[in-house]
Amino acid sequence: MPLDYDMLMRLPAWEIRQDYTRRDTILYALGAGAGIEPRELDFVYEPRLQALPSIAAVLTHPGFWQKDPKYGLTWQKLLHGEQWLRVHRPIPVEGSLKGEMRIEEIYDKGADKGAVLLWKREISDAGTGEAIATVRGSSFLRADGGFGGQSTGAPAPHPIPQRPADRIVELGTRPEQALIYRLSGDYNPLHADPEVAKAAGFDRPILHGLCSYAIACRAIVMGPCGGDAARLRSLDARFSAPVFPGETLSVEIWNDGAFRVTVVERGLVAINNGYFEHD
Amino acid sequence: MPLDYDMLMRLPAWEIRQDYTRRDTILYALGAGAGIEPRELDFVYEPRLQALPSIAAVLTHPGFWQKDPKYGLTWQKLLHGEQWLRVHRPIPVEGSLKGEMRIEEIYDKGADKGAVLLWKREISDAGTGEAIATVRGSSFLRADGGFGGQSTGAPAPHPIPQRPADRIVELGTRPEQALIYRLSGDYNPLHADPEVAKAAGFDRPILHGLCSYAIACRAIVMGPCGGDAARLRSLDARFSAPVFPGETLSVEIWNDGAFRVTVVERGLVAINNGYFEHD
Repeated sequence: MPLDYDMLMRLPAWEIRQDYTRRDTILYALGAGAGIEPRELDFVYEPRLQALPSIAAVLTHPGFWQKDPKYGLTWQKLLHGEQWLRVHRPIPVEGSLKGEMRIEEIYDKGADKGAVLLWKREISDAGTGEAIATVRGSSFLRADGGFGGQSTGAPAPHPIPQRPADRIVELGTRPEQALIYRLSGDYNPLHADPEVAKAAGFDRPILHGLCSYAIACRAIVMGPCGGDAARLRSLDARFSAPVFPGETLSVEIWNDGAFRVTVVERGLVAINNGYFEHD
Repeated sequence: MPLDYDMLMRLPAWEIRQDYTRRDTILYALGAGAGIEPRELDFVYEPRLQALPSIAAVLTHPGFWQKDPKYGLTWQKLLHGEQWLRVHRPIPVEGSLKGEMRIEEIYDKGADKGAVLLWKREISDAGTGEAIATVRGSSFLRADGGFGGQSTGAPAPHPIPQRPADRIVELGTRPEQALIYRLSGDYNPLHADPEVAKAAGFDRPILHGLCSYAIACRAIVMGPCGGDAARLRSLDARFSAPVFPGETLSVEIWNDGAFRVTVVERGLVAINNGYFEHD
């Protein structure tokens, strides 16, 4: 059954409420591998606690909504494509949030290629209504193309400069990294269960794409933002290859805001076309 | 002011309620270093989740109650002495618990040595009232001796055999181990803050004694209990030296139930006179 474009685009926005605590904020940073270097202490310890801005990607997360049969999507063939973040004010280290999520657009790349679904989530303070962050992402639905939609107009990837990066940071991941990261809300067994991972074609469980994104965020906050999370304004990424827990990530950063994440052990680009802005 | 034995012994039992989830149970096991070896998956992943029995040490924990001025204790000079556990039924992976805590006895080792305070906490299911575990411990109050109490009668340490251990398991800890472990409830800055650790005479933050205890529990459950946490009946330990996060622990286990934990890098015994029973 082809994807029902009109039905999906007419869906009303859905609202997600979430209360979270300093413990959750710290656990997210530990899931992103913070805590080894003393200079990252403020992401994992209370007195001067800062939230790693990429945490917005998991706050008021609606869960794996694409799996609900009522949307008619072939979720088994879904890949997380891109992730975008705009920060409107520093992410609080605890609080009550409201997320308002909607489907923005769906592009048709053809029956043999698939569909690209863009969604957007506005996160605000549930009490004051103040805007905190806008999170957007794309899901690549490999089996849902050919529904007769427009093929062009999707956001163009940020170009990566041809010259060498201005700074390179190598950050290790731990064998149990995905097990810690998943406690921030993405309990997909692909990231924990060796059997599920094998069935999906991987030798072993893979790291969450958003965990690599969080690791890149650490490198950018500790580098270009000088350790001050409040200076990060945006963080965009395109997921291009899976990472296995335990591998080392090389984060290349260019002064114009481009970044890229490569798996050192396999020489594969895991996050491509990255882009950030900061004050 | 000398310790007020009569006042302390007349204190009514205090009750602590706690709701906890599978996420808390998993986070505790990750804090204990589980998750690296696939055979420990059932302590960190939902489908066949087991609680590591040592979690009872943190469940319905009253916090650092000895610090309350009303008890008149010199808490700055307190050391965690011993920890005992009796398991009455497998620790649930989630639930609502009631803890009932009381001071059992206080021994007077003399003004120059200090006092030993024994406490006991009965943990039960808050709904059904079923007994789950009995947790006991001793606090060594180095500055509170000489109050005129009895000096003998404290539980004798379990002897460690003179012969070599029947099995030895080496388990690593991570630089950020204490930062993960503390999310299970013991937020004492001594385990996170380099400044606080220095003021206490340590080069850097130390691991929680109960984290080393939890690591020993992993070794015993995966070894003598064959990976079945429900088989562990008791787990007693005496803390004898601090461990720094990142160090490797050698857990020596004897067939008669004795165990001991040594810091490989420094050759120091961190847990002495350990003893466990299992079905």
